[in-house]
Amino acid sequence: MKVAVAGATGSVGCEMMNVLEKRDFPVSEILLLASERSSGKKLKFKGEEIEVKTLKEDSFKGCDIALFSAGKKVSLEFARYATSSGCLVIDNSSAFRMDKDIPLVIPEINQGDIALNKGIIANPNCTTIIMCLPLWPIHKRFRAKRVVVATYQAASGAGMRAMNELLDETKAVLLGESYERKIFPFQYAFNLFPHNSPMMDNGYCEEENKMVFETRKIFHEENFNITATCVRVPVLRAHSEAINIELEEEASVDEIYEVLKEAPGVKILEDRPNNRWPMPIDASCEDEVFVGRIRKDPTQRNSFWLWIVGDQLLKGAALNAVQIAEYVIK
Amino acid sequence: MKVAVAGATGSVGCEMMNVLEKRDFPVSEILLLASERSSGKKLKFKGEEIEVKTLKEDSFKGCDIALFSAGKKVSLEFARYATSSGCLVIDNSSAFRMDKDIPLVIPEINQGDIALNKGIIANPNCTTIIMCLPLWPIHKRFRAKRVVVATYQAASGAGMRAMNELLDETKAVLLGESYERKIFPFQYAFNLFPHNSPMMDNGYCEEENKMVFETRKIFHEENFNITATCVRVPVLRAHSEAINIELEEEASVDEIYEVLKEAPGVKILEDRPNNRWPMPIDASCEDEVFVGRIRKDPTQRNSFWLWIVGDQLLKGAALNAVQIAEYVIK
Repeated sequence: MKVAVAGATGSVGCEMMNVLEKRDFPVSEILLLASERSSGKKLKFKGEEIEVKTLKEDSFKGCDIALFSAGKKVSLEFARYATSSGCLVIDNSSAFRMDKDIPLVIPEINQGDIALNKGIIANPNCTTIIMCLPLWPIHKRFRAKRVVVATYQAASGAGMRAMNELLDETKAVLLGESYERKIFPFQYAFNLFPHNSPMMDNGYCEEENKMVFETRKIFHEENFNITATCVRVPVLRAHSEAINIELEEEASVDEIYEVLKEAPGVKILEDRPNNRWPMPIDASCEDEVFVGRIRKDPTQRNSFWLWIVGDQLLKGAALNAVQIAEYVIK
Repeated sequence: MKVAVAGATGSVGCEMMNVLEKRDFPVSEILLLASERSSGKKLKFKGEEIEVKTLKEDSFKGCDIALFSAGKKVSLEFARYATSSGCLVIDNSSAFRMDKDIPLVIPEINQGDIALNKGIIANPNCTTIIMCLPLWPIHKRFRAKRVVVATYQAASGAGMRAMNELLDETKAVLLGESYERKIFPFQYAFNLFPHNSPMMDNGYCEEENKMVFETRKIFHEENFNITATCVRVPVLRAHSEAINIELEEEASVDEIYEVLKEAPGVKILEDRPNNRWPMPIDASCEDEVFVGRIRKDPTQRNSFWLWIVGDQLLKGAALNAVQIAEYVIK
């Protein structure tokens, strides 16, 4: 397959290349595309140095699959050039996620939707993917009546420059120096803030709405009952989430562990007596979503807490996109 | 009043002295007490250098009020020497909080309990105080049916050495150097972990249980329905909490804002169109608990989200203790 990566120099783009290589995706030729600014840079793929080219209307000629991760604006402008060249687009931006003609896919959950594509398949929001992966098997078995989530989101969700900004600002704070931020609206070093995506009319930020509406689309349940508070914490690259879930069918903590032990892409990590649970540094650079701390919530019938952590760049983005591509070629 | 501060060299002890001075508490003499290790150190109070003395059985002779903040073990050992000298103890540790003969007080909520003391008054857990301050007036007006909390807790909750450990470990991580932790069990720099207090039999950590049982005692409601997930985030000195609350009496977002505008010790801080809400750096070194992002939770009847941030060392500890002392002398 001739594969194009649009946004190859970004944090997700780089991980897409790593994942293609690591999973031995059948790449006959790889085309690395980015904005003019990054054109000419060289990136390694399977031991070879490959030059980054400027993303243009005619970039996709002869390509089979294009993985897009260069932001919504770029996807809205260039995805159609790829599809009109007969190239399948797997898009990591939010551009097409809620388009009813475009499948939004987490392969472990709704791989069947892949076949319905008309040239574009959307990759869900990272926080949503990480949550849905353990939530889906629990929901399938016990039916979730209501899900309440608080997130602890890493810098990587805002890209490579955001990760660097967190590091640089932290250095400046430690040295007592001033620092001019370019990505985040507020101090991030030793601080946190509710997610900085735009505020929507319903009083929730865009990120919180994505968790609600994308989950409903992925689960094929228009009324799936979920609410979120999204928060950015000064962590580099894995998102954590505290999930409170009320179930319809009678469940026990042991049964939920059993369900999750069998769940694809999910890994239970805990040492209960020693109060040791998944942490961002555990999940960083790992494929699985880590789960632990499943415990009964005594304040409501048949309710439970879960603690989950997942690499935002891998299963939250690049890995999920490549998994979709794998299903496509199957 | 002759006032003793036991644990004067700790982070809360230092803030106790600041608060006594700032609020012009009628101190005729101040006695600074600490372990032998800190004995001889000099600390400033009202412009004067005061030598720290070793905490001993006979330290409290002639004292009127002793503010304890040197940990549970020290309180369990030395509080009785203070009370037997006729000195009133206001204790910031967890030693006496759940003792049914000892009042546990947030003055804005249950100042009436102060009069019931028999020589010791307990200061609640920091995360609990910060949550209860805005929660109480909402509960009084609309009756809370169920409260679900996820916390974002700062290093200061584990003391001054913990704050320094976060700074030092962060420096080491930035320099790529190894670092030997003494306070926290896991990497804290650019990472987070579920609260490191001991695990209890019910599957919750001690900190989470404190939020449940102390709130019930302060509110005088044995069955107050609250559940928490407590998490340490790499922030220096203010705790944040995402609170989901289901109310019995019909309420609106506007009505909740109205209630909180009138609530003592609570300050609303937000700029909704610009997605600007309370942050730890806003609340650090401030007396009030900051609240914002009150919004309807559409997944359940009469349910709402709140976002709160409070200085863990001030209202969460030193300020609340000194406020109790102020009520005592009134």
